[in-house]
Amino acid sequence: MSQTPAVRAAIVGSTGYGGVELIRLLAAHPRAAVSSVVSSSSAGSSFAEAFPHLTEIVTDKLDDVDPDLIRDKADVVFLATPHGVSAKLAPQFLAAGLKVIDLSGDFRLKDPEAYRHWYKKDAPAQAELDRAVYGMCELFGQEAAGADFVSNPGCFPTATALGLYPAVEAGWIDPDTIVIDSKTGVSGAGRGLALGSHFSEVNENFKAYKVNQHQHTPEIEMVLARAAGRPVAVTFTTHLAPMTRGIMSTMYATLTDRGRTSADFTGLYRSFYEGRKFVRVRDTGVYPATKEVYGSNYCDIGMSVDSRTGRITIISVIDNLVKGAAGQAIQNLNLIMGWDETLGLEFTPVYP
Amino acid sequence: MSQTPAVRAAIVGSTGYGGVELIRLLAAHPRAAVSSVVSSSSAGSSFAEAFPHLTEIVTDKLDDVDPDLIRDKADVVFLATPHGVSAKLAPQFLAAGLKVIDLSGDFRLKDPEAYRHWYKKDAPAQAELDRAVYGMCELFGQEAAGADFVSNPGCFPTATALGLYPAVEAGWIDPDTIVIDSKTGVSGAGRGLALGSHFSEVNENFKAYKVNQHQHTPEIEMVLARAAGRPVAVTFTTHLAPMTRGIMSTMYATLTDRGRTSADFTGLYRSFYEGRKFVRVRDTGVYPATKEVYGSNYCDIGMSVDSRTGRITIISVIDNLVKGAAGQAIQNLNLIMGWDETLGLEFTPVYP
Amino acid sequence: MSQTPAVRAAIVGSTGYGGVELIRLLAAHPRAAVSSVVSSSSAGSSFAEAFPHLTEIVTDKLDDVDPDLIRDKADVVFLATPHGVSAKLAPQFLAAGLKVIDLSGDFRLKDPEAYRHWYKKDAPAQAELDRAVYGMCELFGQEAAGADFVSNPGCFPTATALGLYPAVEAGWIDPDTIVIDSKTGVSGAGRGLALGSHFSEVNENFKAYKVNQHQHTPEIEMVLARAAGRPVAVTFTTHLAPMTRGIMSTMYATLTDRGRTSADFTGLYRSFYEGRKFVRVRDTGVYPATKEVYGSNYCDIGMSVDSRTGRITIISVIDNLVKGAAGQAIQNLNLIMGWDETLGLEFTPVYP
Amino acid sequence: MSQTPAVRAAIVGSTGYGGVELIRLLAAHPRAAVSSVVSSSSAGSSFAEAFPHLTEIVTDKLDDVDPDLIRDKADVVFLATPHGVSAKLAPQFLAAGLKVIDLSGDFRLKDPEAYRHWYKKDAPAQAELDRAVYGMCELFGQEAAGADFVSNPGCFPTATALGLYPAVEAGWIDPDTIVIDSKTGVSGAGRGLALGSHFSEVNENFKAYKVNQHQHTPEIEMVLARAAGRPVAVTFTTHLAPMTRGIMSTMYATLTDRGRTSADFTGLYRSFYEGRKFVRVRDTGVYPATKEVYGSNYCDIGMSVDSRTGRITIISVIDNLVKGAAGQAIQNLNLIMGWDETLGLEFTPVYP
Repeated sequence: MSQTPAVRAAIVGSTGYGGVELIRLLAAHPRAAVSSVVSSSSAGSSFAEAFPHLTEIVTDKLDDVDPDLIRDKADVVFLATPHGVSAKLAPQFLAAGLKVIDLSGDFRLKDPEAYRHWYKKDAPAQAELDRAVYGMCELFGQEAAGADFVSNPGCFPTATALGLYPAVEAGWIDPDTIVIDSKTGVSGAGRGLALGSHFSEVNENFKAYKVNQHQHTPEIEMVLARAAGRPVAVTFTTHLAPMTRGIMSTMYATLTDRGRTSADFTGLYRSFYEGRKFVRVRDTGVYPATKEVYGSNYCDIGMSVDSRTGRITIISVIDNLVKGAAGQAIQNLNLIMGWDETLGLEFTPVYP
Repeated sequence: MSQTPAVRAAIVGSTGYGGVELIRLLAAHPRAAVSSVVSSSSAGSSFAEAFPHLTEIVTDKLDDVDPDLIRDKADVVFLATPHGVSAKLAPQFLAAGLKVIDLSGDFRLKDPEAYRHWYKKDAPAQAELDRAVYGMCELFGQEAAGADFVSNPGCFPTATALGLYPAVEAGWIDPDTIVIDSKTGVSGAGRGLALGSHFSEVNENFKAYKVNQHQHTPEIEMVLARAAGRPVAVTFTTHLAPMTRGIMSTMYATLTDRGRTSADFTGLYRSFYEGRKFVRVRDTGVYPATKEVYGSNYCDIGMSVDSRTGRITIISVIDNLVKGAAGQAIQNLNLIMGWDETLGLEFTPVYP
Repeated sequence: MSQTPAVRAAIVGSTGYGGVELIRLLAAHPRAAVSSVVSSSSAGSSFAEAFPHLTEIVTDKLDDVDPDLIRDKADVVFLATPHGVSAKLAPQFLAAGLKVIDLSGDFRLKDPEAYRHWYKKDAPAQAELDRAVYGMCELFGQEAAGADFVSNPGCFPTATALGLYPAVEAGWIDPDTIVIDSKTGVSGAGRGLALGSHFSEVNENFKAYKVNQHQHTPEIEMVLARAAGRPVAVTFTTHLAPMTRGIMSTMYATLTDRGRTSADFTGLYRSFYEGRKFVRVRDTGVYPATKEVYGSNYCDIGMSVDSRTGRITIISVIDNLVKGAAGQAIQNLNLIMGWDETLGLEFTPVYP
Repeated sequence: MSQTPAVRAAIVGSTGYGGVELIRLLAAHPRAAVSSVVSSSSAGSSFAEAFPHLTEIVTDKLDDVDPDLIRDKADVVFLATPHGVSAKLAPQFLAAGLKVIDLSGDFRLKDPEAYRHWYKKDAPAQAELDRAVYGMCELFGQEAAGADFVSNPGCFPTATALGLYPAVEAGWIDPDTIVIDSKTGVSGAGRGLALGSHFSEVNENFKAYKVNQHQHTPEIEMVLARAAGRPVAVTFTTHLAPMTRGIMSTMYATLTDRGRTSADFTGLYRSFYEGRKFVRVRDTGVYPATKEVYGSNYCDIGMSVDSRTGRITIISVIDNLVKGAAGQAIQNLNLIMGWDETLGLEFTPVYP
């Protein structure tokens, strides 16, 4: 944090995994740097004491959640706060003249009724929902350019929508037949203490959770509805895998034309994502694994048409903390600022 | 192995995980015991040297694969051999007058053409295929009674068929809409060396494999066809999870009558599995995790109807080495002998 | 729990991992059975709801901690309660005429000052400390015969003392040079929620904790002092490994006579543990791994003298929840009752 | 690989984990870049097919091991080849005028007899051994400046020597009492197939290996002898932990002056490593965990004096593939070139 960077970033909710990952990624960014780490619960204490891996890297004390203070120290605020909290903080930071990139689910759904139904809380005001640009970079990236308020997509919706959008938009699969079977590492549930994140309960275990009730369902449907041009309802199941990072969505749908082959779909996807560096479409018959994007901002996609059943199986993987959270948030910062979207994000996956 | 047990068992292919698990389970069986551990590759060597966890438990040397020799030492032979090998050995042991329980895929499919297509090998003779009783205990257990040759089901087909059979048989789901998303621990791939089983490649990784090409597909379809009374084609995807044991099948299908509820299905399943101790149907809204059956012969099933999409999600879990292999093989021995099917198999799951 | 068993057991603190493991092991015991599962915090609720792996296995509701009630239902009480709690409960259950086997650290140290120093709490009364037999079965098993109150050893002391006792007693190693480097799985820390047990913090991580401050230090020294016939002070470090079960102690000491070989030590240990089924001494040059005792009551030991340095390296492994807790507790029950110490405990290790 | 970098690097043995990690790290280096990936076994084939995480990152085909060819494409060669192979290749590349940084053990020991004893092979010629600078950067970094041949230290010696050197050199601990208990993740054993790296054998397992026989022993002793000014023999045990990356050395030694405190030692180490960015000495009473250096070039050290025993416990951690291999190799490149040693290596640890 030596020279004044082009953009000074404050991170609110910095003691969660999303916040810590923002610190890791921004440390390598050539035009942005963390100028303030903010925490309501731990203001004044040493950051590296809580996160010893940042010893001698982050030496600042934690700042309090004070928009006036932060306005002096930062140009943009990343809200890595739980839903419900972002809803309250975002308007304050916007009012203080800061750009806001919110990683929570509070401003993603534009329909407050859907938010209420799935999140079991009241939604922010419609005007605020409308002001927040939904920042799914490879699909709607141009909308973030110059924006001052971006709502960063959810982890499952990122992997899933990138995997389904081209086929739905092209009309090659029937949106009414979509089944999404997702698997995630444990870090997606955050650093909070819960029996469901206890090592002895998770290790050597595979479990489903929130079956048919996950709050990312309407977000996926919102994006797919834009592709389909009409409402879409999907079956969506989430599972917890005994690993820290990584999301895989395995997606199934019926072809609208059984004559189309795996190669046709691969071609469609490659054409759709032409020039988008963070989406890598695998060769026909090759499927990505989560470790192949570990620690990076890539979303890798593979697919296979089964002529026996007339269905396609599409597999997409991301690192939930990077492309599914902090990485895409920085990608959105790049888009807001008019920079190359890959700036500071070209991390090679950590393998093995 | 002190007293003469009611049944003396030989285990061929004892140095694989299926064979070793048979030894663990039979050590606790009140009426059967291992009288010979057989290996073509390591005959004459000490078993416990290769598997130190069996130090002072198995003290015999490995026997050679010699039906005449084994006829003197055993009453029943478990073939825990790879497919292709069982096809050759089973007839020899049967000819020697031994009962045979085969854990490979060689005698499961009754259609040699299907075997050839999915296993990429020639099938055994039709007469032998017909002689081998397909031992899916909770579905066709009565067929094993008194048999001398049982083909033990595959791991994925066991979890999957137990999860789907009641609903298909009742006509409550449309068989043409079935999508099966399965996840397995690494032990299912055996003890052989392969990059896909290398710790550094599997740990912190989640990957799909044999998409639309897994050889268990026709076995699942064979069982479901019996339930449906007509041919069934399913979409079936297998994934490797970073854990040693456990299989979960997450299964999706469209209801034939959208008025049926989760509770209706739970009732159907409980009624279907009434009196079958190894299938535990969870309360509506509760889903089993693989660790909840770890080391045991249980198959646990949970389900949820989604009124938004008119689909049901069914989740079933097993320990792939127990209910998915060695445990069900012993359950078949019990059925062959006319004993209680739970004899020697009431292991409480190891948790955590 | 159908027939009346010879001994009816109540488990207090049944909702922790030690309690749950007692349930698993006792389910296979031919002469004892669980007659009451007791929990202060969850009395009246369903046990299997909290531990679904016990669905249809434990169907009783949880009982309250009421010695008078439990006296009617049980003959022996296993206290799987935290230290501090056992100190209060044990006298009450003893007064009610029940036999007590306490798995906590409260009654292990016979020196209240040592307890106060290492546990940071006041010790129970000296009379109670003296009444509690320290139940390290393979070393002092005869003392438990007929006792009504046994203090079950700690997990690290069990692995460590079994690994060092014969050599110290024989005077073959210098007790003042002992260094103990122990590693444990996470289940040893219990089911309580703490950042140190969070999956994302533990997985792919290896860490030391309580360096030179672990409360099991004086317990190890108490046992070794009996072997040495004089006070002993050891260096003892504990580490957390990214696994659920298992303890390894790697122990170092200087030989008193550099002429003694690995084979000499192996012979000494085999002779010492002659007839004790749960200790398996490996051949010279072979070292046990934790998985080789997984789910079982074994303690496996291997050793190697290094002529270059005149030191011996001794490695011992146990399953911390079995030999390090519930298994040894049942072994103590067997000894109390005058039964064969292996009764109901001959579980073959679960491998892989 | 677009612009011509200051230094073009060839990686021989690029299909092992050390080679792949060099590619990841060099991709972020501002003044060096990979210009040739070399493999004897796979020349001509696509690199990204074997390592899909490098899809669209490494697009070159693999080159053959041909010093004349590589001389045209590279300035420096990293040998990430097994021991025995480096011994043959290094002289050829040196003769071709290339700088060589060898990651194998072939040129570390300067005593050919020691090499023969521990590696069970003949050593390279003494002249070649002498020519190779032993590149333990924080201890002997100045020796690498301007060198054309550096032998990169082993993973265990790096963690261990950095943890012990200051105390030995200061004469604060007795070198004859040193016990080193090391733990490593599985990636250290490479990508080759072996039962010891099989997931089902490693997962939920902790095991010791090469007890008193590890070939890194003489390398550790060679470095400590420089610190002590006389020969040193240590007890050194290596263990395999169920994780992919990370090494911890827990080290024990007797103080020469029992009056010295933990704080004294912490001060000594901080002073010794003043200005060396990659060594982070923790506060007294705080111990590093392997995850706190994951994916980074840090070596973190913590320590504690135990006044009861007069011993110190020192704990050091590294990522075996970075500071223990590829990272330190690049650090050596920086030193050779006279650049800041941290150039291109300031990766923030990946956490969690």
